[in-house]
Amino acid sequence: MSEILVVGSLAYDSIQTPSGRADRALGGSANYFSLAASLFSKVRVVGVVGEDYEQKDYDLLNNRGVDLAGLSKVPGKTFHWAGAYEGDMNEAKTLNTELNVFEHFNPQLPEHYKDSSFVFLANIAPELQLQVLSQVKTPKFVGLDTMNLWINIKKDALLEVVKKVNLVLINEGEAKMLTGASNAISAAPMITAMGPSAVVIKRGEYGFAMYTKEEGYFILPAMPIPTVIDPTGAGDTFAGGFFGYLAAQKTVPTVAALKQACIMGSMMASHTIQDFSVKALAKVTLADLEKRLTEYKKVITI
Amino acid sequence: MSEILVVGSLAYDSIQTPSGRADRALGGSANYFSLAASLFSKVRVVGVVGEDYEQKDYDLLNNRGVDLAGLSKVPGKTFHWAGAYEGDMNEAKTLNTELNVFEHFNPQLPEHYKDSSFVFLANIAPELQLQVLSQVKTPKFVGLDTMNLWINIKKDALLEVVKKVNLVLINEGEAKMLTGASNAISAAPMITAMGPSAVVIKRGEYGFAMYTKEEGYFILPAMPIPTVIDPTGAGDTFAGGFFGYLAAQKTVPTVAALKQACIMGSMMASHTIQDFSVKALAKVTLADLEKRLTEYKKVITI
Repeated sequence: MSEILVVGSLAYDSIQTPSGRADRALGGSANYFSLAASLFSKVRVVGVVGEDYEQKDYDLLNNRGVDLAGLSKVPGKTFHWAGAYEGDMNEAKTLNTELNVFEHFNPQLPEHYKDSSFVFLANIAPELQLQVLSQVKTPKFVGLDTMNLWINIKKDALLEVVKKVNLVLINEGEAKMLTGASNAISAAPMITAMGPSAVVIKRGEYGFAMYTKEEGYFILPAMPIPTVIDPTGAGDTFAGGFFGYLAAQKTVPTVAALKQACIMGSMMASHTIQDFSVKALAKVTLADLEKRLTEYKKVITI
Repeated sequence: MSEILVVGSLAYDSIQTPSGRADRALGGSANYFSLAASLFSKVRVVGVVGEDYEQKDYDLLNNRGVDLAGLSKVPGKTFHWAGAYEGDMNEAKTLNTELNVFEHFNPQLPEHYKDSSFVFLANIAPELQLQVLSQVKTPKFVGLDTMNLWINIKKDALLEVVKKVNLVLINEGEAKMLTGASNAISAAPMITAMGPSAVVIKRGEYGFAMYTKEEGYFILPAMPIPTVIDPTGAGDTFAGGFFGYLAAQKTVPTVAALKQACIMGSMMASHTIQDFSVKALAKVTLADLEKRLTEYKKVITI
């Protein structure tokens, strides 16, 4: 088994959805990613939290064997995001973002992180993604996520990182924004033309579209979930399931393994959306995933 | 092989898309449906056109063996729809609708139509759908489409027809509007609870979601088409491919046959969107469909 290094946010989120609300609940890409990936593989986190970060939130990852040596606690408050979903559950409206301790985040890898084989650069400023990646000696497979903000204000730096990764894993709106394409299908090969050998475009309730230089499109719908409680973290969960599965394989990632990884990410994300914050995700077992996968295969089998 | 009766519009459409425009080009649900269905089965059309309807447009269906005995030509002009697609190619903005001869449409079936086994009630006023259906003696399988207008102003009449059909085939926005559900997944079983044993929700570039009382969800993405020229008629084409395939089977429609019918509708629709009006659809052959199906299976196979 190979270790996965993830850099991203550890946060408290305040979320409103048609089903209710959660105040200062645990969130952040690194949390969702690590909870999902640690079901399959060993995970190492790089990140920063403030003095208000609670012990139980450390423990959640600690108890899953996640390495937190690269997680620093500094004076100030933890990153806080407030958002709301109305009607269209595929996209959150950001109500407030307080960077707090994240504003001066200067990621330094503990020595033993530097031999990580798998690296996931979750959605943070592209310069920080590059700073992390440059400290890893011989990464075998690197993926990145990003967001509209960085595409708007730091596109050049972002394209520098995109060139260096094997996989871009972004949502549909970002894929269109990054490429200028009018749909995910035409955006996908434009993204692999920027460097990566694969791109996975997350389509929320519609599932995902992967495109690889080697084999072209691989597209499937999401698991049908009638009641979506809180979609926050679904994309990071997908990434965690994807990388966790991939890193647990014995071989170098093949396209066949990437396909399976998409499915696993998708099954994992279908749990996250069934409760607020990381509540549903934290409880998921491998048996739950197997069961859901069986149901899913019925849904997509001709 | 069983005959399919379709009632719907024969129209001239004026369409603007990011790829260009078409003025007074052939359109209408019955035209798209019949061109698609006639590749597999015998089709009978009920409809009305004006004095401006061109001989070549009759010939297009005539040459495909479509029975036009139920198509009346009356004084006045043919139904005309003008619409535009901007950015989101999944939904047209209606610029203008001239009902013209459609305003006093009073569908009467020729005697030999009344033994039709398959019936598709395309998007027309629910009272007219009912009027057509009540003239068919022993229909084996009946489907209907509708639109936001009828859900808004004639919901009771619409629910009367819904009760009497085997299949509702509508788009995602309409499914949500009809049920009050916030997504297609929760809308689907609410629609079968209204009477039909199956519902197919068309999701544009994201494919379709079928739900049957017997086996639950069957969901697949659309064929990836990088450049969508004109999505007009994709839904009616889907319906035509679906019914054409279904009616060509030797047995009563099983869920397995409904699934194959969805795939066939989807493959057919993927051609329609590749050119304006019925231009691409009119050229599709069974060999083209087979070829595309092979490509599609690669896209969705794990």
